[in-house]
Amino acid sequence: MEAVKFSNKIASTLETELRDQGPALARREESGWRDAERAAALLGGDDVDYLLIAARGSSDNAARYGQYLLGLETGLTVALAAPWLYGHGHQPPALARAAVLAISQSGRSPDVVGVLAAARSQGRPTIALTNAPEAPLAEHADVVVDLAVGPERSVAATKTYTASLHALAQIASALAPDRISAESRRALPAQLETAVAEGLAGRERFDVLARARPLTVVGRGLDYATAHETALKVRELGGVPAEGFSLPDLLHGPVAALDRDAMLWMTSSGPDAEAEVIDAFAELRSRAGVTVAVSGDPRLLERADLAVAVPRDIEEWAGPVIAVVAGQVAGLRLAEIGEGDVDRPFGLAKVTLTN
Amino acid sequence: MEAVKFSNKIASTLETELRDQGPALARREESGWRDAERAAALLGGDDVDYLLIAARGSSDNAARYGQYLLGLETGLTVALAAPWLYGHGHQPPALARAAVLAISQSGRSPDVVGVLAAARSQGRPTIALTNAPEAPLAEHADVVVDLAVGPERSVAATKTYTASLHALAQIASALAPDRISAESRRALPAQLETAVAEGLAGRERFDVLARARPLTVVGRGLDYATAHETALKVRELGGVPAEGFSLPDLLHGPVAALDRDAMLWMTSSGPDAEAEVIDAFAELRSRAGVTVAVSGDPRLLERADLAVAVPRDIEEWAGPVIAVVAGQVAGLRLAEIGEGDVDRPFGLAKVTLTN
Repeated sequence: MEAVKFSNKIASTLETELRDQGPALARREESGWRDAERAAALLGGDDVDYLLIAARGSSDNAARYGQYLLGLETGLTVALAAPWLYGHGHQPPALARAAVLAISQSGRSPDVVGVLAAARSQGRPTIALTNAPEAPLAEHADVVVDLAVGPERSVAATKTYTASLHALAQIASALAPDRISAESRRALPAQLETAVAEGLAGRERFDVLARARPLTVVGRGLDYATAHETALKVRELGGVPAEGFSLPDLLHGPVAALDRDAMLWMTSSGPDAEAEVIDAFAELRSRAGVTVAVSGDPRLLERADLAVAVPRDIEEWAGPVIAVVAGQVAGLRLAEIGEGDVDRPFGLAKVTLTN
Repeated sequence: MEAVKFSNKIASTLETELRDQGPALARREESGWRDAERAAALLGGDDVDYLLIAARGSSDNAARYGQYLLGLETGLTVALAAPWLYGHGHQPPALARAAVLAISQSGRSPDVVGVLAAARSQGRPTIALTNAPEAPLAEHADVVVDLAVGPERSVAATKTYTASLHALAQIASALAPDRISAESRRALPAQLETAVAEGLAGRERFDVLARARPLTVVGRGLDYATAHETALKVRELGGVPAEGFSLPDLLHGPVAALDRDAMLWMTSSGPDAEAEVIDAFAELRSRAGVTVAVSGDPRLLERADLAVAVPRDIEEWAGPVIAVVAGQVAGLRLAEIGEGDVDRPFGLAKVTLTN
């Protein structure tokens, strides 16, 4: 790993890619719809009873969103694959009645490619979500959904993450048009662009998180994915230990490690958080040094040391696309005030080639 | 939460329950076999193409083991449920072609009960793994597998965790008797008892982990579950921030947060770790303050600051049952040298009643 240090006086590639997220979604809202319809037709086939998704890293967080979104809006059961079972000389599990979808921005993660290849060899329908439709992953796919957001040069995935969520939402919308409206899909790019601009303008507010040991990020439902992706951005970019949890899983044990060195980040993108989320936040804030709320619900925002408002007038499916921006900006800011290279965090490569 | 402080001069309930794990498995190796055969018959049914497992906390870590074990040894695809989708007034996802298994020591977690109830109402085959066969969970199950390890009074789950692994292994053994031998099943209780006795005798070695900020626990394959359960015990009992990862997921980003305040725990219970696990451990140890290896492979053990040997002569399925003992003992020890009550960590209740 080279020890290049970039000046933070000029915008990093990462910041440029953050700002490109809104325009990129506007482009792919048009260009991606036909792919989404083809993927939806495949998922709606008579021989498909569930969907298996294979992914790693940020793409795996997008897969979590897909699990909740497709279950909630279309009634499809979604399983997340254990890629290890499909490599290492193992006989892969049987995939009868499954469709298989792989998410990989590079299209080159061998273990993710392996899951799609196994599905194809078992004669199952396959879908690839990728930003590299010419890469090996696409060779094993019946339908290729091109993320089409242009090259992502920073090591940390940002625009490919929001594009993956958008692609999954388009597929869900094609399956259940009464649940995810075309109007809300068309409104999202401008809302995302605003959220990025406002987030970047206020980035200094996240400086306090550099001292978190650790940062505990909580979300549930569709925002379970947001919690994991927020923790990943803060950890990989900021070098700050950070972990994502669902609320019940946190309360089942890990809550015991919350103390004054710990900071708590609640992400709940909808306009009305569930009562138990509000109760838990009120209870947990006395145990954490600093609290963050990213929400459309003023009852959460007013209880937080650091409040990031999500617009209250967006549909449920779109909330996580907006709410993750705060995590991305926090990661960027922590990288800017830390040592090293914003675009190439310590020890990371863009494509992880482990099996 | 009461602020009772127990004397650590007498053995805690937790220590007693740790020591009971071997004898408990010996008892349930006999008593549980018929239940396991009935569950296996249900999973082998003509109308079942995959298994959905619902669980929370330590039971969810047992579910991860079940996902890898059943996939590896029987070829069954296993999905882990998102319980949120089955409550909160949602229309649950469709479960055609699924069998559904719920793991809950108390049999009373409402969200886990909700998944089994939804499966039953859709006419799907259902299995409950529980230490409380009289509790509500069992009412929704076609087959009840009684963990039968006696009351678990300490808040932290230990003997119900190893019993859940054992119950899943019995089911896998009933489905694939050539892969999980009766001989290895009969040998495990004594091996587990030895591991617990040796672990407790050397518990002071884990004192150094109290300073970890955070502890990063890595495992893959069957030990992915061990990594998560180790992190959970250290976090809930020791109050030390700790997180479990698969190796590829760690290398995909969170590795950036490893530094001299961080400690690294590698759990790889088999006699021969994969080459990339050994390479990664050798690489990562230069970035972590203290390293722990729990393994049967001397190439890992000799590279660790703190080495916990797993017997080399056990079958692959049994490794995680032995390897988790180090995590349990580390959690117990960190609780003993910390403040508060070993048997009732700060802020935890035995049964989490969130939906």
